[in-house]
Amino acid sequence: MAGFIMSGSVSPLAPKSFVPMPSLRGVRMATASAGIKYKNRTDVLMMVFDKPASVAGVFTRSKCPSAPVDFCRANLPHGTARAVVVNSGNANAFTGMKGRQATALTAKSAAAAVGCGENEIYLASTGVIGEPLDATKFSGVLDRMQAEATGDFWFEAAKAIMTTDTYPKVSTRSAEIGGVAVTINGIAKGAGMIAPDMATMLSFVVTDADIASEALQALLSDGVGPTFNSMTVDSDTSTSDTLMLFATGAAAEDGQARIERADDPRLAAFRAALNEVLKDLSLQVVRDGEGATKMLEITVTGAESDAAAKRIALSIANSPLVKTAAAGEDANWGRIVMAVGKSGEMADRDRLAIWFGDIRVAVNGERDPDYSEAAASNVMKAQDIPVKVDIGLGSGSATVWTCDLTKEYVAINGDYRS
Amino acid sequence: MAGFIMSGSVSPLAPKSFVPMPSLRGVRMATASAGIKYKNRTDVLMMVFDKPASVAGVFTRSKCPSAPVDFCRANLPHGTARAVVVNSGNANAFTGMKGRQATALTAKSAAAAVGCGENEIYLASTGVIGEPLDATKFSGVLDRMQAEATGDFWFEAAKAIMTTDTYPKVSTRSAEIGGVAVTINGIAKGAGMIAPDMATMLSFVVTDADIASEALQALLSDGVGPTFNSMTVDSDTSTSDTLMLFATGAAAEDGQARIERADDPRLAAFRAALNEVLKDLSLQVVRDGEGATKMLEITVTGAESDAAAKRIALSIANSPLVKTAAAGEDANWGRIVMAVGKSGEMADRDRLAIWFGDIRVAVNGERDPDYSEAAASNVMKAQDIPVKVDIGLGSGSATVWTCDLTKEYVAINGDYRS
Repeated sequence: MAGFIMSGSVSPLAPKSFVPMPSLRGVRMATASAGIKYKNRTDVLMMVFDKPASVAGVFTRSKCPSAPVDFCRANLPHGTARAVVVNSGNANAFTGMKGRQATALTAKSAAAAVGCGENEIYLASTGVIGEPLDATKFSGVLDRMQAEATGDFWFEAAKAIMTTDTYPKVSTRSAEIGGVAVTINGIAKGAGMIAPDMATMLSFVVTDADIASEALQALLSDGVGPTFNSMTVDSDTSTSDTLMLFATGAAAEDGQARIERADDPRLAAFRAALNEVLKDLSLQVVRDGEGATKMLEITVTGAESDAAAKRIALSIANSPLVKTAAAGEDANWGRIVMAVGKSGEMADRDRLAIWFGDIRVAVNGERDPDYSEAAASNVMKAQDIPVKVDIGLGSGSATVWTCDLTKEYVAINGDYRS
Repeated sequence: MAGFIMSGSVSPLAPKSFVPMPSLRGVRMATASAGIKYKNRTDVLMMVFDKPASVAGVFTRSKCPSAPVDFCRANLPHGTARAVVVNSGNANAFTGMKGRQATALTAKSAAAAVGCGENEIYLASTGVIGEPLDATKFSGVLDRMQAEATGDFWFEAAKAIMTTDTYPKVSTRSAEIGGVAVTINGIAKGAGMIAPDMATMLSFVVTDADIASEALQALLSDGVGPTFNSMTVDSDTSTSDTLMLFATGAAAEDGQARIERADDPRLAAFRAALNEVLKDLSLQVVRDGEGATKMLEITVTGAESDAAAKRIALSIANSPLVKTAAAGEDANWGRIVMAVGKSGEMADRDRLAIWFGDIRVAVNGERDPDYSEAAASNVMKAQDIPVKVDIGLGSGSATVWTCDLTKEYVAINGDYRS
């Protein structure tokens, strides 16, 4: 994006270029600089739906969720959305009664600006936990933001919700529903405190398709399993994870028949496109993992079940020793063995096989006699490192994504608040 | 210990001095430099019991255990020990048939040197995973080691089994059983790949008490819960974790009546002393955590059960974000909230209270209005940082220990094999 200027150092794994984001009928956006924590940057995003949009959401499974997560969960059964207000710099989490007051004030201001009920407002906050959020800072600007909001603003929207992200995350796909073209646009933020479930981040995906909220929720809940819930940066799950999907229904003007059920066969292409957006955004989050210099794609096959395969894959992906070895470009498959062993899932040492890229380094419970350390080291020098583990017991499989663990991760998180 | 010279940099959390280790009747030790991986240092330890000793052990729960762990598990039901052979530099793990051949050769050589059955030999190996271990390197020296073994050798023994440890770990206590004085001596190694269950390490504890193996096993299994299984450095569980307890029975010469059952009331003082040795050794391992500059003692109270409290405490202790905050001396209690929330255990945000040292930083689901950031920061400047979390729901409690996560951890593990 020509107009985008990176500040500070950008992840070496960042996309080399950004896709142009088409505008999407039925949604407008504006950003503002409210000075919540950061100086000289936007920190509030408002999305406005001109007509009530269908809405679906998945949220952190933390037992200590943020006030905005509580607020969204309560509104979701209502089933329509008119606005989303997101701020960065303060998570409004573990803020007790003050936190609830902040969400109430924001919702009231947003509802007044848009002219809708407070149960059609959705909120998200990201940043420091435990600091009271002064919602008056941005609730006062929502009127103006609503008036100024425009459709061609996806990239700016993605920038406004960044915290320790080094680049904004956007994705777009198109699909047809019953012969009518629809678009899916998404933005995400997240770089640390990233783990299933949910991966710790905020993401907002919007389509102009006309799909009922129940169907939308089913599509989203199915879609997160192999995408956002299959990535981990540091195994830490945030209090604020929020992924929402909105359908403005504007494609109805082109004759798209409204879809009521997720199992409607006319959704096949849309579902595939949505899952691509979710995967694209989630991988962009991993590739912006704090301090990351490598991305690991860990595929486990031959496990007792898909669920067992995923637990083994996450045990590998969350192992500090596997992640530091990746940082050191060390094809240290012994640590893969360790992580398989500690997963608690069924494994038989003498059936295990392990690959880095195409190089099989271990087979039948010991080092592959034909493996060349030089060839394996070569795989480790790349930015993207495929790791494959075959358990040799069943047909369960799973793929997860993570990044390496570097000194920069420690530096970024050793003085985040100060 | 006057004769001990540290090489390289020693953990700032290391003991300021080492306790003198008394010799213990019935066990002799020798070390040798077999050049398995390291140069200019000892890397083989042999412990010899002149009479068959009672024996107990707990081992890694890894599904991919090392060959020596398999070997020890198989011998344990036999119930007596005559020798232990330990090497550092190579874990003999994931070495398949070659690994079993190496344990068989070592056991055969040790049995021949001591004059006992191979089922009275115990083995442990620590170091790199997946490299075949050339057991001929040290099996040839066991005869000589057996002959040279002496009683006053605990400190040298602890040094021979070190890998990335920066100091040797020894502990001693005495107790009385039925009026007869007995001694308990222990050594341990471990610095990374440390997590329950077991904490990743090797430890050998010996007493001259006369206690049957069944009773010894019960004492050991009870003792590890609040000690070795309550510490974590990096959440990674090794393939080789081994903790063994031997009783030479030499105190019988002083009239100590043999103890057959762990619930024998005469064991009360012995049990307490043993648990102190286990705690002392396990904390020494945490204090030598790779790259550690801080020790965190995390106490959780008010959980639904003791087991729930321990899972919450471990969720905190294993959180990279909590550990990097500690490294940065940041009283970032928001990350404690996050870790409580992700543990999966019952928690009510609005009942949580959190302390760093004596400073209560959060109460009733929000920041403590009376808390002084300066006072909390002061707590974080100390080497030992007590963290307390009250869940406010029940009476379950647990304490675990961990260290901070520093750039040095990444450096140590980013090029361990090279």
